[in-house]
Amino acid sequence: MKVETVDFFYLSMPEITTNADGSQDALIVRVCAGGLTGWGECEASPLVSIAAYVTPMSHGVCRPVSASVLGQTLDSPADIARMAAMVSYNSMDLLQAPHTWSGIEIALWDLLGKARGQPIFRLLGYERAHAKIPYASQLFGRTAQETLEHARAARRAGFRAVKFGWGPFGAQAVEADVEHLDAAREGLGAEGILLVDAGQVWIDDVEAAAARLPALERNRVTWLEEPFHAGALGAYATLGARTNAVKMAGGEAAHNRYMAEHLIEFGRVGFIQIDCGRIGGIGPAKQVADYAAARGVAYVNHTFTSHLALSASLQPYAGVSEHRICEYPFQPRQLAVDLTSSHIRPDGNGEIVVPETPGLGVEINEAALGHYKVDVEIKVGGRTLFPLPPRA
Amino acid sequence: MKVETVDFFYLSMPEITTNADGSQDALIVRVCAGGLTGWGECEASPLVSIAAYVTPMSHGVCRPVSASVLGQTLDSPADIARMAAMVSYNSMDLLQAPHTWSGIEIALWDLLGKARGQPIFRLLGYERAHAKIPYASQLFGRTAQETLEHARAARRAGFRAVKFGWGPFGAQAVEADVEHLDAAREGLGAEGILLVDAGQVWIDDVEAAAARLPALERNRVTWLEEPFHAGALGAYATLGARTNAVKMAGGEAAHNRYMAEHLIEFGRVGFIQIDCGRIGGIGPAKQVADYAAARGVAYVNHTFTSHLALSASLQPYAGVSEHRICEYPFQPRQLAVDLTSSHIRPDGNGEIVVPETPGLGVEINEAALGHYKVDVEIKVGGRTLFPLPPRA
Repeated sequence: MKVETVDFFYLSMPEITTNADGSQDALIVRVCAGGLTGWGECEASPLVSIAAYVTPMSHGVCRPVSASVLGQTLDSPADIARMAAMVSYNSMDLLQAPHTWSGIEIALWDLLGKARGQPIFRLLGYERAHAKIPYASQLFGRTAQETLEHARAARRAGFRAVKFGWGPFGAQAVEADVEHLDAAREGLGAEGILLVDAGQVWIDDVEAAAARLPALERNRVTWLEEPFHAGALGAYATLGARTNAVKMAGGEAAHNRYMAEHLIEFGRVGFIQIDCGRIGGIGPAKQVADYAAARGVAYVNHTFTSHLALSASLQPYAGVSEHRICEYPFQPRQLAVDLTSSHIRPDGNGEIVVPETPGLGVEINEAALGHYKVDVEIKVGGRTLFPLPPRA
Repeated sequence: MKVETVDFFYLSMPEITTNADGSQDALIVRVCAGGLTGWGECEASPLVSIAAYVTPMSHGVCRPVSASVLGQTLDSPADIARMAAMVSYNSMDLLQAPHTWSGIEIALWDLLGKARGQPIFRLLGYERAHAKIPYASQLFGRTAQETLEHARAARRAGFRAVKFGWGPFGAQAVEADVEHLDAAREGLGAEGILLVDAGQVWIDDVEAAAARLPALERNRVTWLEEPFHAGALGAYATLGARTNAVKMAGGEAAHNRYMAEHLIEFGRVGFIQIDCGRIGGIGPAKQVADYAAARGVAYVNHTFTSHLALSASLQPYAGVSEHRICEYPFQPRQLAVDLTSSHIRPDGNGEIVVPETPGLGVEINEAALGHYKVDVEIKVGGRTLFPLPPRA
């Protein structure tokens, strides 16, 4: 097969709030090759990722992502890796390129899986997919009472694990943070798995983070996610050395496998969280999963949008039975729900498993592509670069 | 002062080639505040960096760069650092943001320098600027004979240091690379400083790079730049441990100070090369210069475009007398020459020094902004986001 077309769909809720909720818009990618269609999703900033696909070349290693994809052969996983290497080299100086490529890469795997009649995890070498314990991923409440109620709601919905993040946490007084942590544990119950996401709020201030450690330890928080800037490896390692049971988690910002590997090697995180919509897709995520497993670090998916992205995020470690926890968007905006006509739901045991159906195993609801569509027009030097010309 | 307007000028040569020559296009930034004007330059991919300034918000930490700049107070270097922290946090999930912000940050320093009647290096705390030995930065010839001629030409032009990079180097047989290295040394003469830039060609293949080491050592090459992917820290450290006199160099891809610091700490480079148009501007570059100096690593500017960018790139280490070498675009395209009406030229000693005049000390040639201008139009949901509306 040859990659014939790559199309982008910028979708958005009518209103975007300043909540750290990534399900408010989406950039969906459709790839056509050999009479088949594959779908993927980029994370985030649809306009900028589209621009990185269509931009004029600046020079030999600052080419648009399209230059390394269109017309390329797609017959095997090695072809996807070859295109990934081309993007990495040809778009070396185009910072946004990995985010754009990520959605395309996922769509290529979806298409290849459909061509072979196999789910992606099998193309990655896994015999079978193991069930994961989904954690209800949500924002801290504005008050501790709200956090308590959110935790209770997740528990009622059958979740054995809950993650709270962002909101006021970390930027308010230590005492207020402690109230939220106590409320989260109370709402979840003694048995539940409690996870906390600080959203980089302390940048690289180890002492500010350490002030919350006693309450994190007392509430038996499994991981403290992104206490610091994604690049502040030293701060991660220093804080991690000062905890007992609480482990450091991070990695969602990694836009290549090296960044994730360094967070493991030098940041000494206990959980490495990979967003397939950013790191360059499923291929490099699988490399990180292998790297983590060899070092006794748990791999966790990062995803906060649609079930298309959820399925992609699960593939790289679907076959690893020991890495049990997975992120699961608990209250996504309607756009993310409507985007797919099939969904990955927890079973009676409160666990989820990636579909056995070919590719990502999740069906796109094409009506949603129209309903939430945002029109984009990009012209450079009088030439229309987007919308892309229809297929010849 | 308040930041009143930020404007972007996308400039391009009429034709863009696949040479790794970053002077073929440019994104110039103009900031107005308090009746003054500051200028900066982003590196690279003008369209994508413009998109990151104007894009609609995706969520609270995926905001356009404009959200953290317009209307902000600008009275001191601390204000620039405060805006930098805002961009870093508010545009956390917008990968292109550091490249866009870099040009703005440089323009803010230029403007602040003009407001205070001081060159930027003095605002950074340096008493005076020390002269640097510019190296003529150019591409390897297509043949060894061409490389020989290029080296001779640079020497005739008075350069005591020359860097060759890209072109066929690294991707051809070892023997062919050796011929280029021998030719470069021959053309430059026994005394000259010879530098080599591999342009990431070996990705993370240490053995492929090591096969060139004997010829690099024999030709007394001072540094081998970017043998590997910017993130392959382990490969840098491994190769560096196998050389005698040749040191590793890298860092141009760093889009925050942590990345540069890790290349020093974990990649063990001997030279850290910072592009102010990518790392977030002059502020973080100065932090890296301090970090490097404290660890006995030499700071070097990375720049391949206009003398506006050249001046910006020199400021962070202008006051460090021991770090002597600086990159100097030897044969930039006409656009990069025409962009400024003043230029930083080598003196009779073959050395350069940053201007003492306020700000960057380089005058923009406004006629060039018109002559090389590329029109860009970006519409989202029927609304024109670019060109930006004229100042009210």
